[in-house]
Amino acid sequence: MSAVDFSAFVHQLADAAAEASLPFFRTALGATDKNVGGAFDPVTEADKAAEAAMRRLIAAQFPTHGVVGEEFGARDAGADYVWTLDPIDGTRAFLCGLPLWGTLIGLGKEGAPVYGMMSQPFTRERFFGDGARADWRGPGRDGRPIERRLATRPCEALAEATLMTTSPHLFSGDDAAAFARVAQGCRLVRYGGDCYAYCMLAAGHVDLVVETGLQSYDIAPLIPIIEGAGGVVTAWDGGSAAQGGAVVAAGDARLHAIALARLRG
Amino acid sequence: MSAVDFSAFVHQLADAAAEASLPFFRTALGATDKNVGGAFDPVTEADKAAEAAMRRLIAAQFPTHGVVGEEFGARDAGADYVWTLDPIDGTRAFLCGLPLWGTLIGLGKEGAPVYGMMSQPFTRERFFGDGARADWRGPGRDGRPIERRLATRPCEALAEATLMTTSPHLFSGDDAAAFARVAQGCRLVRYGGDCYAYCMLAAGHVDLVVETGLQSYDIAPLIPIIEGAGGVVTAWDGGSAAQGGAVVAAGDARLHAIALARLRG
Repeated sequence: MSAVDFSAFVHQLADAAAEASLPFFRTALGATDKNVGGAFDPVTEADKAAEAAMRRLIAAQFPTHGVVGEEFGARDAGADYVWTLDPIDGTRAFLCGLPLWGTLIGLGKEGAPVYGMMSQPFTRERFFGDGARADWRGPGRDGRPIERRLATRPCEALAEATLMTTSPHLFSGDDAAAFARVAQGCRLVRYGGDCYAYCMLAAGHVDLVVETGLQSYDIAPLIPIIEGAGGVVTAWDGGSAAQGGAVVAAGDARLHAIALARLRG
Repeated sequence: MSAVDFSAFVHQLADAAAEASLPFFRTALGATDKNVGGAFDPVTEADKAAEAAMRRLIAAQFPTHGVVGEEFGARDAGADYVWTLDPIDGTRAFLCGLPLWGTLIGLGKEGAPVYGMMSQPFTRERFFGDGARADWRGPGRDGRPIERRLATRPCEALAEATLMTTSPHLFSGDDAAAFARVAQGCRLVRYGGDCYAYCMLAAGHVDLVVETGLQSYDIAPLIPIIEGAGGVVTAWDGGSAAQGGAVVAAGDARLHAIALARLRG
């Protein structure tokens, strides 16, 4: 069974996650209740509801598959096929009402990412890929859904590069110095993106994303999208990014090499 | 003629701006050409096209009104009614493909803001208000447009507050120290928002926005939205924010007073 066969099922997972999470996005409920001791946390509720919905579908359709999720941990993480789920990547964006969070759904086969999707249900956008090809589905100018192939853009010099990272406060100590060596050479630095930043890289609007402290479910689902669009994503040491940690993604392999060298000092 | 009478016309202006600017958003054209010397700048093209479209409509409908715009300067800035136009507020977001930029349209009467709109054409959202009331129009869960009244949320303590600002690099010297006095006390700080941050404050998802170096057209159109939703927005010295400069907006007047005191040191 090739990764492509999973595509329709992954869209089903994204539908289920959207139905579960959107009712918690921009709710006055969460805003009101935070003043009575934080008993109700809308992003955690959305996270749990969306992950539970996806796990139910996976268990019914592919009972032998493993699942690693942000909210409910790992089940059969050593299986041939393992799903990686981050129901709400970008919790700060979610809390602030910004449509830059996403539901991340990844599929790994024998440890290697083979399919990934980022779904943003408020904007009705989906970014998905299998490492060889990546596509975007979203609203066209008349609001009706259209589909387009994703492709990174060429960028061979740091001085031409647009860099995104979630927050300047992501980095400390040596990591902060390494990040600064890259950021100081860039044409434009933009904060606040989470998974959306990697998708804009895949779409050819951003050249570089540099982050640290990621979990596997934060990045594994994005790898087949980035690579399918022609980009390169690795750990800061040049190894696989699939386990998370410190990650650098570039739309152009030449820029990736430059960024890696700068990160190493 | 009350400010409310202008509402339908402002929606027409936003329609014209959207039609002019969206073709430049997320274009591969801009991405490709930046490597041949920056001759084509999609955000500047979008800015000019959108402002020109709005100016044409205003000149035809209200020839005695003044216009102050980001791209084409001021015309009759001393007229009784003056329009304030920022066709693309959030140029970095626009360049990165993020749907957090907006078209800002403000109307001032004898120097005071009386109507304002923020239009985000990709998400099909509009935030608009007249100082006494503010509303949001955007996609409902099925994608069809719905309208909701905007209301800020209560937040009386800095430790409970979510703060947004466009970038940590916005501030230097004394301003940076003043910003830090506020930010360090907040529960959550999120970067990257531009006009969208003020609209999330009006919608009750963000408690505080602190910025500096704003132009009048960056903030004047947002004032009737923020105030119409129950918020408070002033300069850092407590005076009018309508001329731009250093601005602090809060959803709750009590929080605004706390932030002002911290900014003063």
